[in-house]
Amino acid sequence: MSELTIIDRIRRMARNPGIGDDCAIFRPHAGEDLLFTTDQMIEDVHFLGVQKPAAIGERALARSLSDIAAMGGVPRFCLVALATPSAHEKWIEAFYRGLLRLANRTNTTLAGGDLSHAEKIYCDVMVCGAVARGKAIRRDGARIGDAIYVSGRLGKSWGRKIEPRLALGQSLVGRATSCIDLSDGLSLDLHRLCVASDVAAEIDRVPVSRGSTLERALHGGEDYELLFTLPSKSKSAAGTTRIGTMVRGRPGSVVFQGKPLVPRGWDHFK
Amino acid sequence: MSELTIIDRIRRMARNPGIGDDCAIFRPHAGEDLLFTTDQMIEDVHFLGVQKPAAIGERALARSLSDIAAMGGVPRFCLVALATPSAHEKWIEAFYRGLLRLANRTNTTLAGGDLSHAEKIYCDVMVCGAVARGKAIRRDGARIGDAIYVSGRLGKSWGRKIEPRLALGQSLVGRATSCIDLSDGLSLDLHRLCVASDVAAEIDRVPVSRGSTLERALHGGEDYELLFTLPSKSKSAAGTTRIGTMVRGRPGSVVFQGKPLVPRGWDHFK
Repeated sequence: MSELTIIDRIRRMARNPGIGDDCAIFRPHAGEDLLFTTDQMIEDVHFLGVQKPAAIGERALARSLSDIAAMGGVPRFCLVALATPSAHEKWIEAFYRGLLRLANRTNTTLAGGDLSHAEKIYCDVMVCGAVARGKAIRRDGARIGDAIYVSGRLGKSWGRKIEPRLALGQSLVGRATSCIDLSDGLSLDLHRLCVASDVAAEIDRVPVSRGSTLERALHGGEDYELLFTLPSKSKSAAGTTRIGTMVRGRPGSVVFQGKPLVPRGWDHFK
Repeated sequence: MSELTIIDRIRRMARNPGIGDDCAIFRPHAGEDLLFTTDQMIEDVHFLGVQKPAAIGERALARSLSDIAAMGGVPRFCLVALATPSAHEKWIEAFYRGLLRLANRTNTTLAGGDLSHAEKIYCDVMVCGAVARGKAIRRDGARIGDAIYVSGRLGKSWGRKIEPRLALGQSLVGRATSCIDLSDGLSLDLHRLCVASDVAAEIDRVPVSRGSTLERALHGGEDYELLFTLPSKSKSAAGTTRIGTMVRGRPGSVVFQGKPLVPRGWDHFK
């Protein structure tokens, strides 16, 4: 099967006849800011070649949607760059089937992409989301005294399905003072949020996923839950847990049950 | 050097303190459509690991800018996904230095990206451009009788510097009936443009790059010149050559000097 045939097939699967021009054309709505994020998934780094391609495709989109959720955005469209060994037509179709399942469920249009070959499977998914002008939730807005929350339970097993917390993120717009998605582990992502906001954190509890350990809940990556802060008297949403409070201190420093928590989540270059 | 340190260094090189949030925030101008394109560059497929990283970075951005040029867009910002073997900090910096040189020259903000590791070097550059509402030049607007043009000379050597034809593309807005950038070879890209526009083409001459061959000018990829059509009586721009005319016939078929020209430019899956 040639590249033209594969692209034609994807175009039909996506029900988007626009795919195939040099660029995708997007007309923004008035009064909105746009959010852009891109995330790579690489064979033998983020997944194994034996895993199901539909699950890999769905996960690749879910990771980027999680970033959109963290800033309170509504997903609009995605671009998908994919490289596979040359004889993988069926694999490519199954990958797109999985990705499009989640795309349809979250109203994310597959607007275009790039197809190439490589020795190992590689993909990069860019997602564009939208949020009311000036209302994106950032990492740098947490203030001393704010309550710190996480959604769900942490330390989940790696291979599971990711459910990007889009509805929660959207409900936090105008309410949360800061938010980040937990992709690299609570200890590292909370450290990052504190550095950006110029505050320190004290946490005293962490909701641990069933069958997991506290260690994994603190330092394991790939939870894709939201970590966010609210003014101390605000009420949070269902399915979230207050884990601590922002305090005065060395920016970025985190204390867990009275002891310093060293950030040692996922770092691609360590 | 840790991932945080590398990202901090890139943030300073890009002079964009916004880099580091989950998403880049972009505020669109009123009355504009946005254009999005993404292009992969993969070690041993699009370049060799021994090539200079600054040249690879510049080329990675240039390829995507060429797509923006083809639709008449003005570049706004880019997202850069990069994966390298773990010990490549100096390589990463040089890659970004080359990319940012072209980004600055073309007013393209480096708005964010993703950094990971992989056995081979891999990158994917997404560029957003803007064009007046409804004015993007597409592939599907060529009409029977239109004159076919290319910019520059074709069949250029692979390793050279790419100069994306942004000014030419912008000057064609409202004038060209269709446009595509020559990334996969004239025979394949002209075939694609004809298929999209539902027309056939007759070409009788091709400007061949000095030291190259007609064969390479017809079928070689990576020229990154613009192929476009104008109504028969329009004047074209300097540095462009009329190579033929759109005619009635089987959509997508191309005749060169009286003989069928089979599309056999670059196909990643052949």
